[in-house]
Amino acid sequence: MPATLLDSEVFRDIFTTAEMRDVFSDRYRTACYLEIEAALARVQGKLGIIPQDAMREIDARCKVENIDFAKLKQATERIGYPILGVVQQIVSLCKDGLGEWCHWGATTQDITDTATVMQIRAALDLVEQDMEGIAAALTDLSRRYRDTPMAGRSNLQQAVPITFGYKMATMLAAMQRHRERLGELRKRVLVGEFAGAAGTLSSLGKEGLKVQEGLMAELKLGQPEIAWHTVRDRIGEVGCFLGLVTGTCGKLSMDVKLLMQTEVAEVYEPFHEGRGSSSTMPQKRNPVASLYIHANAAVVRQHAAALLEAAVADHERSTGPWEIEWISLPEIFLLAAGCLRQTRHMVAGLIVDAERMRANLDITRGMVVSEAVMMGLGPYLGRQRAHDLVYDICRKVGPTGPDLLDLLAADKEISKHLTRDQLARMVDPTDYLGLAGEMVDRVLAIEDAHARR
Amino acid sequence: MPATLLDSEVFRDIFTTAEMRDVFSDRYRTACYLEIEAALARVQGKLGIIPQDAMREIDARCKVENIDFAKLKQATERIGYPILGVVQQIVSLCKDGLGEWCHWGATTQDITDTATVMQIRAALDLVEQDMEGIAAALTDLSRRYRDTPMAGRSNLQQAVPITFGYKMATMLAAMQRHRERLGELRKRVLVGEFAGAAGTLSSLGKEGLKVQEGLMAELKLGQPEIAWHTVRDRIGEVGCFLGLVTGTCGKLSMDVKLLMQTEVAEVYEPFHEGRGSSSTMPQKRNPVASLYIHANAAVVRQHAAALLEAAVADHERSTGPWEIEWISLPEIFLLAAGCLRQTRHMVAGLIVDAERMRANLDITRGMVVSEAVMMGLGPYLGRQRAHDLVYDICRKVGPTGPDLLDLLAADKEISKHLTRDQLARMVDPTDYLGLAGEMVDRVLAIEDAHARR
Amino acid sequence: MPATLLDSEVFRDIFTTAEMRDVFSDRYRTACYLEIEAALARVQGKLGIIPQDAMREIDARCKVENIDFAKLKQATERIGYPILGVVQQIVSLCKDGLGEWCHWGATTQDITDTATVMQIRAALDLVEQDMEGIAAALTDLSRRYRDTPMAGRSNLQQAVPITFGYKMATMLAAMQRHRERLGELRKRVLVGEFAGAAGTLSSLGKEGLKVQEGLMAELKLGQPEIAWHTVRDRIGEVGCFLGLVTGTCGKLSMDVKLLMQTEVAEVYEPFHEGRGSSSTMPQKRNPVASLYIHANAAVVRQHAAALLEAAVADHERSTGPWEIEWISLPEIFLLAAGCLRQTRHMVAGLIVDAERMRANLDITRGMVVSEAVMMGLGPYLGRQRAHDLVYDICRKVGPTGPDLLDLLAADKEISKHLTRDQLARMVDPTDYLGLAGEMVDRVLAIEDAHARR
Amino acid sequence: MPATLLDSEVFRDIFTTAEMRDVFSDRYRTACYLEIEAALARVQGKLGIIPQDAMREIDARCKVENIDFAKLKQATERIGYPILGVVQQIVSLCKDGLGEWCHWGATTQDITDTATVMQIRAALDLVEQDMEGIAAALTDLSRRYRDTPMAGRSNLQQAVPITFGYKMATMLAAMQRHRERLGELRKRVLVGEFAGAAGTLSSLGKEGLKVQEGLMAELKLGQPEIAWHTVRDRIGEVGCFLGLVTGTCGKLSMDVKLLMQTEVAEVYEPFHEGRGSSSTMPQKRNPVASLYIHANAAVVRQHAAALLEAAVADHERSTGPWEIEWISLPEIFLLAAGCLRQTRHMVAGLIVDAERMRANLDITRGMVVSEAVMMGLGPYLGRQRAHDLVYDICRKVGPTGPDLLDLLAADKEISKHLTRDQLARMVDPTDYLGLAGEMVDRVLAIEDAHARR
Repeated sequence: MPATLLDSEVFRDIFTTAEMRDVFSDRYRTACYLEIEAALARVQGKLGIIPQDAMREIDARCKVENIDFAKLKQATERIGYPILGVVQQIVSLCKDGLGEWCHWGATTQDITDTATVMQIRAALDLVEQDMEGIAAALTDLSRRYRDTPMAGRSNLQQAVPITFGYKMATMLAAMQRHRERLGELRKRVLVGEFAGAAGTLSSLGKEGLKVQEGLMAELKLGQPEIAWHTVRDRIGEVGCFLGLVTGTCGKLSMDVKLLMQTEVAEVYEPFHEGRGSSSTMPQKRNPVASLYIHANAAVVRQHAAALLEAAVADHERSTGPWEIEWISLPEIFLLAAGCLRQTRHMVAGLIVDAERMRANLDITRGMVVSEAVMMGLGPYLGRQRAHDLVYDICRKVGPTGPDLLDLLAADKEISKHLTRDQLARMVDPTDYLGLAGEMVDRVLAIEDAHARR
Repeated sequence: MPATLLDSEVFRDIFTTAEMRDVFSDRYRTACYLEIEAALARVQGKLGIIPQDAMREIDARCKVENIDFAKLKQATERIGYPILGVVQQIVSLCKDGLGEWCHWGATTQDITDTATVMQIRAALDLVEQDMEGIAAALTDLSRRYRDTPMAGRSNLQQAVPITFGYKMATMLAAMQRHRERLGELRKRVLVGEFAGAAGTLSSLGKEGLKVQEGLMAELKLGQPEIAWHTVRDRIGEVGCFLGLVTGTCGKLSMDVKLLMQTEVAEVYEPFHEGRGSSSTMPQKRNPVASLYIHANAAVVRQHAAALLEAAVADHERSTGPWEIEWISLPEIFLLAAGCLRQTRHMVAGLIVDAERMRANLDITRGMVVSEAVMMGLGPYLGRQRAHDLVYDICRKVGPTGPDLLDLLAADKEISKHLTRDQLARMVDPTDYLGLAGEMVDRVLAIEDAHARR
Repeated sequence: MPATLLDSEVFRDIFTTAEMRDVFSDRYRTACYLEIEAALARVQGKLGIIPQDAMREIDARCKVENIDFAKLKQATERIGYPILGVVQQIVSLCKDGLGEWCHWGATTQDITDTATVMQIRAALDLVEQDMEGIAAALTDLSRRYRDTPMAGRSNLQQAVPITFGYKMATMLAAMQRHRERLGELRKRVLVGEFAGAAGTLSSLGKEGLKVQEGLMAELKLGQPEIAWHTVRDRIGEVGCFLGLVTGTCGKLSMDVKLLMQTEVAEVYEPFHEGRGSSSTMPQKRNPVASLYIHANAAVVRQHAAALLEAAVADHERSTGPWEIEWISLPEIFLLAAGCLRQTRHMVAGLIVDAERMRANLDITRGMVVSEAVMMGLGPYLGRQRAHDLVYDICRKVGPTGPDLLDLLAADKEISKHLTRDQLARMVDPTDYLGLAGEMVDRVLAIEDAHARR
Repeated sequence: MPATLLDSEVFRDIFTTAEMRDVFSDRYRTACYLEIEAALARVQGKLGIIPQDAMREIDARCKVENIDFAKLKQATERIGYPILGVVQQIVSLCKDGLGEWCHWGATTQDITDTATVMQIRAALDLVEQDMEGIAAALTDLSRRYRDTPMAGRSNLQQAVPITFGYKMATMLAAMQRHRERLGELRKRVLVGEFAGAAGTLSSLGKEGLKVQEGLMAELKLGQPEIAWHTVRDRIGEVGCFLGLVTGTCGKLSMDVKLLMQTEVAEVYEPFHEGRGSSSTMPQKRNPVASLYIHANAAVVRQHAAALLEAAVADHERSTGPWEIEWISLPEIFLLAAGCLRQTRHMVAGLIVDAERMRANLDITRGMVVSEAVMMGLGPYLGRQRAHDLVYDICRKVGPTGPDLLDLLAADKEISKHLTRDQLARMVDPTDYLGLAGEMVDRVLAIEDAHARR
């Protein structure tokens, strides 16, 4: 029975996704090994490095269905690495000893690194799908609520009004940057490995680079400029990218859970019967997705640090640092997948209470637009003097005392310059949204341009 | 099929242990839930809070065999937490609606926290077993090689001679400190949770503390002074402890892998046919356990940081930080278990080449004991002058040139004070072991005292 | 001009404290080196290992005022370590070449490790002072607000009532555990190092252990059982301890900043004119201490991970891992000091609005005590049925619709068992505080016992 | 006196650089603030938003020489942020109250974020200089030692021969990727912030975007699509980039320190009199730069994780997460600068002992090329059979027994296919360098192309 939360029979579809688990399953990984060994045999057969019948026989046997995983487990435990065990099984499956030509000139890490890159490729495709799902939902929210006023909050204090669409657009802009990053890293990271024991391709004589080129073409991967068995910035970069993307999810979930507070109640995670209900408190409507997003993102960033440490490899094949990747790379993708999926569902079904947003703008009794007043007074009194004056007046606004407009109108210094009507317009929060809408439009324009591509 | 390395059907018994996986399996955790619910019913029955027949019925049904895990998965995904789903299954198993008295006055986190502590208790027992196994092996090595000279190495340079027993004893001393830490943390950490929705036991009226006391007695856990739903230093402390213990394993593996280097070859991991063999380089005898130990320890410490972050919980039930523990606590124990088990096997079967150790002491042609010469000259020349003089002479010792003794004997300043014979004794590395043996004895004495307890 | 925030001429007294900076200043550290060298000379003089006049001369010269820091910088850059440079200055200050007896038989790391422990001792004293300050403030708040009702919040939703004193007491309990941890680690960590080049004390012949014993007695440090130059769990433990303590501060600041929200407004950081004011929003009353506490704790835990990594040292003197401690140990103490000091000021001057706490308990229109209703209905309907019934009714309570009491009283199933009066008592939040007070008393009793010692 | 290692009067030029300290000094940061305020005044003056004489007066006063840092410290401690204190000083310096127009419509974080980006810009230029220095040194080493044979090492065991130039070229390739990453991130990260209190530019009416555009043009920064006060992926990305670059430095230093081992002795850090010398062991030639590189890289990656955490910001101005950046961003740059500078010096002056490299290739008595034998036998015996046969023979090669060639020539199965002469050629390590040279050329070609740009 599984022991990690990510494989748990109870929690696995909460904290990660079935699709991502597939990519990092023993089966998928081993299938990648076999796809590589088969492709290698085909390339070497075509180049005349191994016999044609060996090529055909190996190509035919390299199917994951042929692998006995219990035997593979034993061999891996004995040897310490999984490749020799796989190759031995293929060897024994091939007739006439033709399997001896399998894995010709390759080293264990050529196969595992290339398989890892194939897993990364598939995993990044899944990441991209959920990123695009999130971007689509954010686009929709940005557009729909472009002009819906709510309190902007700074240091958890109501600051000045914004719109909910604006809030969503700031995060959409981050998703646009992540999309750009993903494109850049793919070209750098989706590069295979085939270089032999110490990276010099010595086992294959002069034809090594031809084999390498052909193999990468078969696998649709980039050809490396030189071996990278112990130069691991590519893997670290993937980890960092996931750290950045899930950081944005973390920010989104932070805002959602704060907006769901009993005392704020402006936004809700999508409602399902029983969802977020408490075993003892029938009235509660808990955030749920937000919790998982927050937690997954927190563990993702620690795995990113672990993957950065894996870069400190020794010599031509590292003694421990590489195994950090074995542990952390699947986990970081699994956690990121759960984080993104939960985020996607959350934003796609987000429930927005625009009325409550508007109502909450009134609870400071005008103070949420004290900046407007200050800016309005600035030309008469100077910015600093206006700030200090309004600051002092705000200290007198209280839950039961006079509200800001009354105090402003009663102030002699102010009433010299502004009428009560002018002041009333200043303290209307829906009249102080600035360029929120224009900024939303700028971000949506980028999204439109992307969609047209 | 599992997706994490720790649950992988190929790798799971390399990177963790079956026993530890058991402790963190869905089954074990759910069995803990049920053990708690049953104990709660018994205690509340005895106190007359719930009916006697409800007590008996609930107690009888709370068996993990009764749980439908597929149904539990669905309920957990719907609600976000696993407890309500378990309770609902028990409720429906109990006759006559008696199950309604199950989970009486408890909150979800009371059950999950207490179950977590029960898992920690079982997991720490496993950790202790391997710690004691390592300590026993280190004790044996310290005693056996108490007087076996080898090069002490500082900054990866041969420094002065030590003994291999001394080297092992330095790490045995760390294990002794970890043992002490374990004792201290157990008394603080093995404390249950039963406090109701916000920790005040309000749902149980005045008898809440009696129920709490009885429940902890049933479960053989400490009674908390106050609820700790969102005050999580206990969990963080466990993570830190595992970070410290695996750090010592990491140090051990670092030394073993360095000593296994082709050019050093003083120590080997236990040999098994094929173990550590390469798919392409038949001559190699790779370290294997060392790799896993190194990697597991690296990921453990990042989970420790994640568990420290989980402390920053909000209010009476945290919104995300708690879920960090859900992910990281099982993983940190699973990784620590693999790390400790591999270390235990490594040190228990360590192969020590005392001859090669002795031979390596000669490769600096006397320089490894230049300190002895410096200290011998010190009373005549002063420490600083002696240092500078010997430093300059050492620069002239080379792989093919004169050796240190010849150069010392030829030096006029030196030969004024010391004869060649005296100098020859000084440059005998086996004569410059200092108090290595005495220090080993000091550590072994602590171990003996522990064994006698 | 300094470049780190911790030494910044603008920020240093915000993010750390002058006292802690002192302990980690070049002057203090170098003074420790000299105190050790002087003590060593005295011990060796008394034991007749070095001449009496050398002893006196060295003892007299080992004053930090005598050190030329610019020269020391140059020497350190040349050699890579600071000790030789300090010793050379002392040597040249001593008359008649007597300085040659300085540092007799010691190695660089003996001095630096022992100095580090002396810095840790002083730094832990500072940590303890602020811990006790925090504990005192929490004690006061726990006692003062023992019975002051407020909303307990779970998942950021109002859950059931608690008291503010109860909330404070949960954190006081953590401080009590930290106090216990501090006592335990001091006895383990405040141990010096004096063991020579590879830890065997070979440079001092048979008298090495006597020198070691005498030196530690002079410095009032524990004597190590064996050298720990590369066995660094002691240092890691200190880092973890600080991670745990600042985690509790982080939790405190999390709650304070959430309670300061415009929409909640139950608690405030101490007010100083202008404190937390905005350059543009005159109405704002920002949390300030909370921000620093949160950020410092976040960086502390990453340094804890770095210090755990430093344990993976090689051989008898490590090649890089040790230097991690050079960077991270001062920083983690500096950050922890700032975190603790800000927390202390925050809790000592915390402004509590008990009226607002009471008022906020009413905003759910009775739902905050739905658990009470459920528990009250449980004996009649069963816990599960009661939960589901109240859950459905709660879905109908709304900001403008009927409140919970009306709906309950109107329900036929409920009104069979309970009168409106009975229900009214159930939905009075001040009547549902459970054992909050008793739990506060339990924690205060521990505090009282501590105070009496 | 400074307390951090990075500002220490003894260590600061070891662990970081004077240039990088300058960029993160109070003076430089404050000068950035003033440059922004002045530019803002000029832009607003030109647009007619503030009076012309205010523009001129503010522009003239915004000089860092005018700032009283002691006063600024006081104001910052009182308010919690540094900007208001700077603005107040400027206001009071300006004649006729014209300073009131300073900071018009801006918010604190507009200024600090933009200043941070200006610091990042300057800091990345410094990073790039050292990256290019390292690349140049690696280019030189790759070219010079293109064909110099040495042992490739896998799992710290001699594996197959490589060339030293090849080893260097693998890391040069990483530097080329870092260069590419730097180009990509610059365009994304070097974007200013100017958006007002909650990002909507509400304080400036319709002209806000014009002011923003003009300001960024003045400062030569990109214009943001929308505010990013709490959407911090840009900063996280910078931290990750430094984590990746220093990871490569860590790998380089790992190899250098391993190659400097007494028993290996193939490569040395540049020699300076006294450098790396021990206070007690005159013979030692310690690695020094390697230590700092290793340690700095270790702490850098933890700060990268901290910066990823800073992304989880709340609402429109974050309450704690932002301050993580205040601490970690300067530190990560300071540590990275030290790491890169030490690496640059190390590789630029690296001492390579090609003779010892060649000699070490012989210590396995032929086994280092057992792969060559296996590949040579493969066509006759099959790869797997050849592997197993050579594996068994290698087990018989020992330090004093027969060498590999003798054993191979004596084996009946082998001698059927290959003569002793053929076998002798196979076991010549200089004849088994594979495509090391060609791979070096591929990497150098990329470097040449870069140089031509």
